[in-house]
Amino acid sequence: MIKAYAVFEPNGELKPFEYDPGELLAQQVEIEVLYCGICHSDISMIDDAWGMTQYPLVPGHEVVGTIVQLGDDVRHLTLGQTVGLGWHSGFCNDCQHCDSNDHNLCASAQGTVVGHYGGFADKVRADGNSVVPIPDGIDLASAGPLFCAGITVFNPLVQFNIKPTDKVGVIGIGGLGHLALQFLNAWGCEVTAFTSHDAKQQEALKLGAHHTLNSRDEAAVAAAAGQFDLIISTVNVKLDWNLYLSTLNARGRLHFVGATLEPLDINVFSLLMGQRSVSGSPIGSPAVIADMLDFAQRHDVKPTVEMFRFDDINAAVNRLRAGEAHYRLVLTRD
Amino acid sequence: MIKAYAVFEPNGELKPFEYDPGELLAQQVEIEVLYCGICHSDISMIDDAWGMTQYPLVPGHEVVGTIVQLGDDVRHLTLGQTVGLGWHSGFCNDCQHCDSNDHNLCASAQGTVVGHYGGFADKVRADGNSVVPIPDGIDLASAGPLFCAGITVFNPLVQFNIKPTDKVGVIGIGGLGHLALQFLNAWGCEVTAFTSHDAKQQEALKLGAHHTLNSRDEAAVAAAAGQFDLIISTVNVKLDWNLYLSTLNARGRLHFVGATLEPLDINVFSLLMGQRSVSGSPIGSPAVIADMLDFAQRHDVKPTVEMFRFDDINAAVNRLRAGEAHYRLVLTRD
Repeated sequence: MIKAYAVFEPNGELKPFEYDPGELLAQQVEIEVLYCGICHSDISMIDDAWGMTQYPLVPGHEVVGTIVQLGDDVRHLTLGQTVGLGWHSGFCNDCQHCDSNDHNLCASAQGTVVGHYGGFADKVRADGNSVVPIPDGIDLASAGPLFCAGITVFNPLVQFNIKPTDKVGVIGIGGLGHLALQFLNAWGCEVTAFTSHDAKQQEALKLGAHHTLNSRDEAAVAAAAGQFDLIISTVNVKLDWNLYLSTLNARGRLHFVGATLEPLDINVFSLLMGQRSVSGSPIGSPAVIADMLDFAQRHDVKPTVEMFRFDDINAAVNRLRAGEAHYRLVLTRD
Repeated sequence: MIKAYAVFEPNGELKPFEYDPGELLAQQVEIEVLYCGICHSDISMIDDAWGMTQYPLVPGHEVVGTIVQLGDDVRHLTLGQTVGLGWHSGFCNDCQHCDSNDHNLCASAQGTVVGHYGGFADKVRADGNSVVPIPDGIDLASAGPLFCAGITVFNPLVQFNIKPTDKVGVIGIGGLGHLALQFLNAWGCEVTAFTSHDAKQQEALKLGAHHTLNSRDEAAVAAAAGQFDLIISTVNVKLDWNLYLSTLNARGRLHFVGATLEPLDINVFSLLMGQRSVSGSPIGSPAVIADMLDFAQRHDVKPTVEMFRFDDINAAVNRLRAGEAHYRLVLTRD
């Protein structure tokens, strides 16, 4: 039996929950969970905000752990190996995207917490090709958030061929944004943090930003016209997107990794005049996660986390709900 | 003196207008106009729809003609050479975009009909590096529209590295769309024409489309989910853009070359899930225009035009206003 924490209804509390995972499939591994990050997406799933939650829900998709069971067909991993598991725990392995190592774009990808029991548990199962070995030199206690927050902001740099000579802005300096600043600084870019919190401006500079701009000061944002090659938005609130488009250089891109629910009221002329793009992307493939971990290790990119014991799990979730996490929360057995 | 046709007030008629162009500048050429296409943008300028018209306005930015004067610094062109002139008649030649041969992205580019007298005239002047020689084998009478409508739909294929294996949709089969179908077919793509006019479906197939879809039949469009690598929208009306986004493959792009005035109400999830982009682009640089002309000549891409004599200019403009042009109108001296 696997001992987990589950939610049984929308907005519900996490309660102890045991389940029998059955026989391990040939392509699967079983991971003993050492640490598991808590992501805003876990709260969206707890609340069924996206209409795709199946209860009982075992959240948790920023897993760091040790392989304790290995399916017969899994050859690239070993028992006892330290690995991470993120948003996806399986793929169809049969579509053009899986064939191209773009597993995160697989339309049939299995979500770790969507109709599948996640990492708020002592163990979790996943297909072997969805888990990624963690290289030596990565701090395991803080590594969990790399597997969702980290890869979400790292992936666009790879996908859009961002160059170290590029000027990049990051809107929102929270769980995703504080990692984006570190990655972009290490990538060699000139980095600007957009944040509405005065207190975060100093922190943003320490995290790797070269400049800060108050995201709610329209005049200050307007004065940055034509500057940025890329802006990554990590926020889920509505901003004046046409104003941000005006701060892009020709060929610039306003890229969304935050799931803003309000439609983007984009002015076509803002796109036409400078050949600009608006785009979005989800997580990243295991291949890019592996590259990210190597890059994070070499450049000392590390999530800033607060640790909670697994038996304080509801306190941790409530802290994240209250917007008080600094910057990311991780559950630990210790 | 140059003998032109000018408009003197918003929505006005074109009337004969003479002006003294002064001494030819060292970087300029003077072109004797043989043919000049009429573009929807000319009508927008006549009506001051974009708030940037200066009267008297001499419209006309799809010029085909012969060089009759050559400035001292113009070395790559010769007297008597047949050339074309499009939306831009000069550049700053000093910015990062000009330096990179992306003159169409130059923020200080001179519009041929924006504070400058255009091609509805016996002669027109332009900077030498804004005009492009027309290769042998291109039909001169129908070539004008290549310099605006043509390059506008050809340029995205170059900018976004469209591959012959890609599936591409074109929304709106008018002046721009009928050229997009020809270019895309010659490019090797699988081409779908979206049109709301039943009569145009057969024509679209003749122009190079492999499939047609009724752009106003939401069920038919929805059934094309996940198909397209690129959709080029040439229309200036509001459609259900999120529905069109759903017809894109992962990494697909919805690209606007039509100046829709209503904001695009884009759903962020439509972008996030498949790493999709929404973008726009203006015209193309002289370097890409030259490539386009060579490609058009080799693949027999040719605007379908109706010819009007210059002294019937108001009748021609009224036909375009009425939406009756099939597909493009060209003024001729003959």
